[in-house]
Amino acid sequence: MPPGNSPVIVLMTDFGLSDTYVGQMKGVILSIASIQIIDLTHAITPQNIAQGAFLLGKSAPFFPDGAIFVAVVDPGVGTARRAIALQTDRHTFLAPDNGLLTTIFQNESIRRCISINFTEKRYLLSNVSSTFHGRDLFSPAAAHLACGLPVKELGEEIESASCTRISIPGCLSADNGASWEGSVIFTDHYGNLVTSLDSGLLGRSKQWVVRAGTSEPLPLYSTYGDVADRQPLAYRGSFGMIEIAVRNGNAAELLGLRDGDRVRAEWNG
Amino acid sequence: MPPGNSPVIVLMTDFGLSDTYVGQMKGVILSIASIQIIDLTHAITPQNIAQGAFLLGKSAPFFPDGAIFVAVVDPGVGTARRAIALQTDRHTFLAPDNGLLTTIFQNESIRRCISINFTEKRYLLSNVSSTFHGRDLFSPAAAHLACGLPVKELGEEIESASCTRISIPGCLSADNGASWEGSVIFTDHYGNLVTSLDSGLLGRSKQWVVRAGTSEPLPLYSTYGDVADRQPLAYRGSFGMIEIAVRNGNAAELLGLRDGDRVRAEWNG
Amino acid sequence: MPPGNSPVIVLMTDFGLSDTYVGQMKGVILSIASIQIIDLTHAITPQNIAQGAFLLGKSAPFFPDGAIFVAVVDPGVGTARRAIALQTDRHTFLAPDNGLLTTIFQNESIRRCISINFTEKRYLLSNVSSTFHGRDLFSPAAAHLACGLPVKELGEEIESASCTRISIPGCLSADNGASWEGSVIFTDHYGNLVTSLDSGLLGRSKQWVVRAGTSEPLPLYSTYGDVADRQPLAYRGSFGMIEIAVRNGNAAELLGLRDGDRVRAEWNG
Repeated sequence: MPPGNSPVIVLMTDFGLSDTYVGQMKGVILSIASIQIIDLTHAITPQNIAQGAFLLGKSAPFFPDGAIFVAVVDPGVGTARRAIALQTDRHTFLAPDNGLLTTIFQNESIRRCISINFTEKRYLLSNVSSTFHGRDLFSPAAAHLACGLPVKELGEEIESASCTRISIPGCLSADNGASWEGSVIFTDHYGNLVTSLDSGLLGRSKQWVVRAGTSEPLPLYSTYGDVADRQPLAYRGSFGMIEIAVRNGNAAELLGLRDGDRVRAEWNG
Repeated sequence: MPPGNSPVIVLMTDFGLSDTYVGQMKGVILSIASIQIIDLTHAITPQNIAQGAFLLGKSAPFFPDGAIFVAVVDPGVGTARRAIALQTDRHTFLAPDNGLLTTIFQNESIRRCISINFTEKRYLLSNVSSTFHGRDLFSPAAAHLACGLPVKELGEEIESASCTRISIPGCLSADNGASWEGSVIFTDHYGNLVTSLDSGLLGRSKQWVVRAGTSEPLPLYSTYGDVADRQPLAYRGSFGMIEIAVRNGNAAELLGLRDGDRVRAEWNG
Repeated sequence: MPPGNSPVIVLMTDFGLSDTYVGQMKGVILSIASIQIIDLTHAITPQNIAQGAFLLGKSAPFFPDGAIFVAVVDPGVGTARRAIALQTDRHTFLAPDNGLLTTIFQNESIRRCISINFTEKRYLLSNVSSTFHGRDLFSPAAAHLACGLPVKELGEEIESASCTRISIPGCLSADNGASWEGSVIFTDHYGNLVTSLDSGLLGRSKQWVVRAGTSEPLPLYSTYGDVADRQPLAYRGSFGMIEIAVRNGNAAELLGLRDGDRVRAEWNG
């Protein structure tokens, strides 16, 4: 942990902010540990594990060493699915074993992977509900870790290779990198379209055009202000992926594009 | 207060998150006290005191001893309605005297109840507006309590029996517990329907069916994964009430149910 | 800074809460400084600099001395627009130089104004994206200020008079104060309409009526409870402006009014 930094608990869920679910989780945590709690987001589309995995993988690098993530997109809550505690070289993650940590397994160095023992009453709420492990299991476990509990105390060590991985939308090239095929992963608050085209694969050149839907090929620019008002553009976005936007407008609406639609980057050199 | 825990201020309002109201409250609190502030929720339906009372009562037990709650659903703000500070064996609550603390009066042991003195300038903002006591009265009062001000300093002690109680949707049985009648209290972010049927009254048996709307009687399961995809179920929810959901779907939409609709649990043994 | 208060970082953006943008900013801040972070709001209408400037100016006075504001409504991100750090007698503000600080220049005493040096790698993320300066530039700069970095270290001192100001909706009188013309600035979560009619200009008398849209002139009351259920009223709101509401109802919907609509206060004495 960097000097001067206390640990922090980071929450990412599909619980939304219209209920008391997130608030109750925070109450449970603060009943155990005096610690700062940060919301990464609670607006993962309900039950969308792939979206959660993508955003968790893109966001974790921005958090301090020692951060403890509670990630809950958990349609299988209360079934036999495992709950895992994953310690890496930088962070600790608590999540259902359903693929939500797929990108973390890819991006961080695994130190230890634990299958959380649901009957270990010392570190869980005394009554664990069947439908809200975020509050009754993951939150108290995270708070105890923040207080110094070694992660291995939460259950039995397992091979990280035994954990569930899911497919995250990516991009493919059939012509040695002269073009790339991908899809729209999600649409953000502004209506900007985040695609699965990895900026890194396109190098630093701007000699590319991006095709999506029925609109004209979009040139690759640096930022919104490079085009005229209400004009569309493609650019290397802040997730490290190609994005499509309309300056001062909503690209999803104006271009008629949505999650899952195919996009293609073509070399124009 | 548990060892190592600092006090925390918990906010529950119907202010939403689309304005600066909640942010201004936090600014006022932090101008007086360096303290952690937690949002329980700000999405109580505007002016819905009963919903606020239900959720506050169900959530308070998850918060640490010593927590100070600021609860504001306050259609009578600026009128002659009283503002109260209620100290219990575990927490302190600041709220308008309009029934919002009904469930707290039921669930916690009352130590002291104070009618806040609106002219006590030492503990309020210097200009108290007529429409935003959340910022101008409750927030500074809470911050001063967090700094150690005894609650009795906020005004005059009153009988807690003199405070407003409201009716919270419950459930009734006409046949000695073989069936229970209740209603949908609210619909959550997922479209799950939280009913007024208290799980505790149904015991631990699963030999019940739940009737709601025009759909087939719903068997009582443990969790979503116990039924096939897109199928409805009833279950003991995390509020301690019977809930109705559709696995990986929105029950309110798919079953055509909404707040206030009648539900009935029937013994099927 | 008041005794006992640590500095706090306050965020105001148009990023919304449906993405991970705000969470990533907090991760960046906490990677540098252990500090409390408060959300003023993230629901500024996308690209609406004037709305952001109005709300920032109305909210800053409620925050403690020493607070560091990161204000990002930034349609020109990544272009040649400057980024500024503004130190006043009470606070520090980091923002794009696009008018977002207009009300701060009006309300607070300027101590120092800095044009942030985008190539100063010591205080920025190592890779600054072209579209997310909130995360890559403003957040790390704010965190370093919270750790004690003097604001002048962020770049070159400039004349505050050189910074962009924009027009904020105000009100005008053509008859020596017997009437005032203004407009609806925005509609809040409840459907209450906040107007540009400054309460202070109307004095303390209630001998005014407010005209808006096609409805009858609205008398000036103290609070919602002064009129019957579902009836409209005007009142001095908590921003210090005249507002229009409907008791227990949504004024915007029920009166058919929206942002930009003209309103008029007339002396009725």
